[in-house]
Amino acid sequence: MSTDASPDTSSSSSIVDDAKRFGTPTEATPLADDDHQRELIAQAVDKVRDTTPLAQSFTNFVTINLVANAQLAAGGTAAMSYLPDDIIDTAAIAKATYINVGTLLPFFKDALGNIARSLHAAQHPWVLDPVAAGIGRTRSAILWAFRSAPPTIVRGNASEIIALAGIWDLNVPSAGAHADTTRPAGVEAVDDVDSARDAAVIMARYLRGYAPNHRAAVAVSGATDLVTDGDTVYRLPGGSEMMTKITGAGCSLGGVTATYLAVTDPLTAALTASALYNRASEEAERASHGPGSFQTAFLDALWNTTAQTVSQSPITAEAV
Amino acid sequence: MSTDASPDTSSSSSIVDDAKRFGTPTEATPLADDDHQRELIAQAVDKVRDTTPLAQSFTNFVTINLVANAQLAAGGTAAMSYLPDDIIDTAAIAKATYINVGTLLPFFKDALGNIARSLHAAQHPWVLDPVAAGIGRTRSAILWAFRSAPPTIVRGNASEIIALAGIWDLNVPSAGAHADTTRPAGVEAVDDVDSARDAAVIMARYLRGYAPNHRAAVAVSGATDLVTDGDTVYRLPGGSEMMTKITGAGCSLGGVTATYLAVTDPLTAALTASALYNRASEEAERASHGPGSFQTAFLDALWNTTAQTVSQSPITAEAV
Amino acid sequence: MSTDASPDTSSSSSIVDDAKRFGTPTEATPLADDDHQRELIAQAVDKVRDTTPLAQSFTNFVTINLVANAQLAAGGTAAMSYLPDDIIDTAAIAKATYINVGTLLPFFKDALGNIARSLHAAQHPWVLDPVAAGIGRTRSAILWAFRSAPPTIVRGNASEIIALAGIWDLNVPSAGAHADTTRPAGVEAVDDVDSARDAAVIMARYLRGYAPNHRAAVAVSGATDLVTDGDTVYRLPGGSEMMTKITGAGCSLGGVTATYLAVTDPLTAALTASALYNRASEEAERASHGPGSFQTAFLDALWNTTAQTVSQSPITAEAV
Repeated sequence: MSTDASPDTSSSSSIVDDAKRFGTPTEATPLADDDHQRELIAQAVDKVRDTTPLAQSFTNFVTINLVANAQLAAGGTAAMSYLPDDIIDTAAIAKATYINVGTLLPFFKDALGNIARSLHAAQHPWVLDPVAAGIGRTRSAILWAFRSAPPTIVRGNASEIIALAGIWDLNVPSAGAHADTTRPAGVEAVDDVDSARDAAVIMARYLRGYAPNHRAAVAVSGATDLVTDGDTVYRLPGGSEMMTKITGAGCSLGGVTATYLAVTDPLTAALTASALYNRASEEAERASHGPGSFQTAFLDALWNTTAQTVSQSPITAEAV
Repeated sequence: MSTDASPDTSSSSSIVDDAKRFGTPTEATPLADDDHQRELIAQAVDKVRDTTPLAQSFTNFVTINLVANAQLAAGGTAAMSYLPDDIIDTAAIAKATYINVGTLLPFFKDALGNIARSLHAAQHPWVLDPVAAGIGRTRSAILWAFRSAPPTIVRGNASEIIALAGIWDLNVPSAGAHADTTRPAGVEAVDDVDSARDAAVIMARYLRGYAPNHRAAVAVSGATDLVTDGDTVYRLPGGSEMMTKITGAGCSLGGVTATYLAVTDPLTAALTASALYNRASEEAERASHGPGSFQTAFLDALWNTTAQTVSQSPITAEAV
Repeated sequence: MSTDASPDTSSSSSIVDDAKRFGTPTEATPLADDDHQRELIAQAVDKVRDTTPLAQSFTNFVTINLVANAQLAAGGTAAMSYLPDDIIDTAAIAKATYINVGTLLPFFKDALGNIARSLHAAQHPWVLDPVAAGIGRTRSAILWAFRSAPPTIVRGNASEIIALAGIWDLNVPSAGAHADTTRPAGVEAVDDVDSARDAAVIMARYLRGYAPNHRAAVAVSGATDLVTDGDTVYRLPGGSEMMTKITGAGCSLGGVTATYLAVTDPLTAALTASALYNRASEEAERASHGPGSFQTAFLDALWNTTAQTVSQSPITAEAV
């Protein structure tokens, strides 16, 4: 799935085989057709459609409608709020929560910290979308507050993942190498997905220290998506460039990730959402004539893409 | 019109003929083809298209765009605000107002009470959509504040109508029978429409005590919609299950109800909006391939469905 | 581009040739096919598509999604916020900003004044959409605050331009003649475009006193759009009546104007956005069956309309 126009630079030929250096990739190998992870993905697609789980969202005002519609199109149900009392009440009946810091109001500064602490105390799984991480004091203060009550999954573009790792003071060995190229650029990534690989791995390991059952994941969206649980790095190529020409491709992917997190483990949730988005956006590009008809066709494709198609997506895996 | 996936359990065979017990339905009979109410419905459809009345809205952030677009597609005009000074200024030029408590901000707690009192003082008709009634202290406080300055029409799903009757301390005889099955479930109904029949009738009678010309209505959306003015219970079957797969079906129905309330009486407004939604959603289901194209086709169908088609919808009526 | 249903009353036959009276139009003449202004329009269309410039927005909750999607469909990139710290941070990387006062929250009263002063201090170009100018104390206070740190472009319908000129105490000679017909009517114009001609000219001259490079523009949307830099009045006929049947036609035009302002001068930005909207809405009307499919087709047409088609739009010019 592509949420930015950066070229895909993640080819196996560029991988240095240096297992000593932390975070350096070993060789990525295609996931076998009968790999157990593919079964888990197929089950997640079907379980959402069979059980219509509720995932609630605290998300930005720009794309809140698309987030809800994408969750419904994937088969789940949706509830949205900006009030801690609503979110905490609904967490008792929702299986997962999605929080997106795209458009903030002043009172969110306290509200979001309180919500995160409450979700953490309840061991309630949630997905964070650190939109525009690095821009604005208010956003940085909120993201810092999440450090001690972190999400189960973080999903963002490469720039956001790198910026969030910085805000959280995570010790990313390769951070220096990218210091000159990493800067916030509105809500668009200016870094390629692989530049965030090390940050993603370190972040996943940090998250699982706080997570229910010690399982967590980080998903980096780009021309090729990268998903990791801290032990293995998965790459999911494909998708459509048109995803960068509609607003909310990334946000709604985060929301759908929460929908899957309501029925499965964090790694499977992130992989399933990414694979569904790649296949659905490819189908939508074939069926459309511009960004208006693309969005319409994309929601149709979320609804119509089969569990078989999603689970048989091209995926590579490498041990960290 | 269906805003939830609950099966339609409202069949005349399940009706107990016991006129002694309050709220027990008598036999529902089809509305005659030349019933005067059908004329009023046809006139409402045409009058909106001929006069493009302004109905203003204070509605949630998720579906605010669809509410406005649905009002425009039905033929009206729209204005949206969250400020008491705006709403009160605009009430002088708008014929009706729509208030939806789906996504609240902290300042709404005082603002919405002030707005309701101002509308009541001006005898200005308005529609309340008690989204997620029963969830959150802030929402409950706002809904309680409406008790002494209530709307002209309440439109919600069965769970919301039952919950609102509880918040308002209305004396619903059958409430105990449903106490174990009624609970808030996000924004989705978990109760069937008929379980809210008694609450709807009592609520309509309560509302008309405060309403301009002592006329009010309550509409319960479900697989079969239920509309009542406190004397007669109307049922409107049909619609599309796909309405549960887009966000804002219910909210925009509330907004379009306000558009009709700008040109007609509360009962006719609620019946017209429900019948239009049923016919338009059936047409949209025929013309679409998933939830994306369904929403597009639904707005087209709101625009294209004739007054004749709307007014000749299947409707049954029973005296309370 | 039409954002209201007012008939187009701007014909050259109604123009009085009285150069002594300020603001009386001289004869409007068609812009030559090889006029330099047409070249600038074609360059603006292409430069946005080639460089995907970032324009940020502080805009209303109703149409924020359409604003972003229209900016993307025109070829730009988008970022949205409601926080001064976000807007001021992002102004350093965005080339232009769009501010729309459609749906206000209480804290916007201070926030928007602070943002305007900050943009002014940085000589950062921005577009104001004075939605519903004249309604509500909060909105009037905000618009008054912009008077001493004004935008580079104002885009509105005739009623809004006239109301804003009044709020800013601009000395519009013909204002008295329209005093009885000018009143706020929700967000719909009740005045025809030419009634705002004098206000637009005076406003453009006022704005350029504060603007970077002393260049500014005012755009009045209607059945025929009117754009002026204070010296010349341009008129752009055409577009589709269906633009009045979707919400956000005007708001998204303001957002796309900011996208063009990121790559060109204010006059060219306003002309380019207006001409693109007229051609795209005509194409969308041909390709659609109602307001749902119209909006979808309109976004496709923003994406597909060529620079050649936009720059060869019918445009007349008259010296003031």
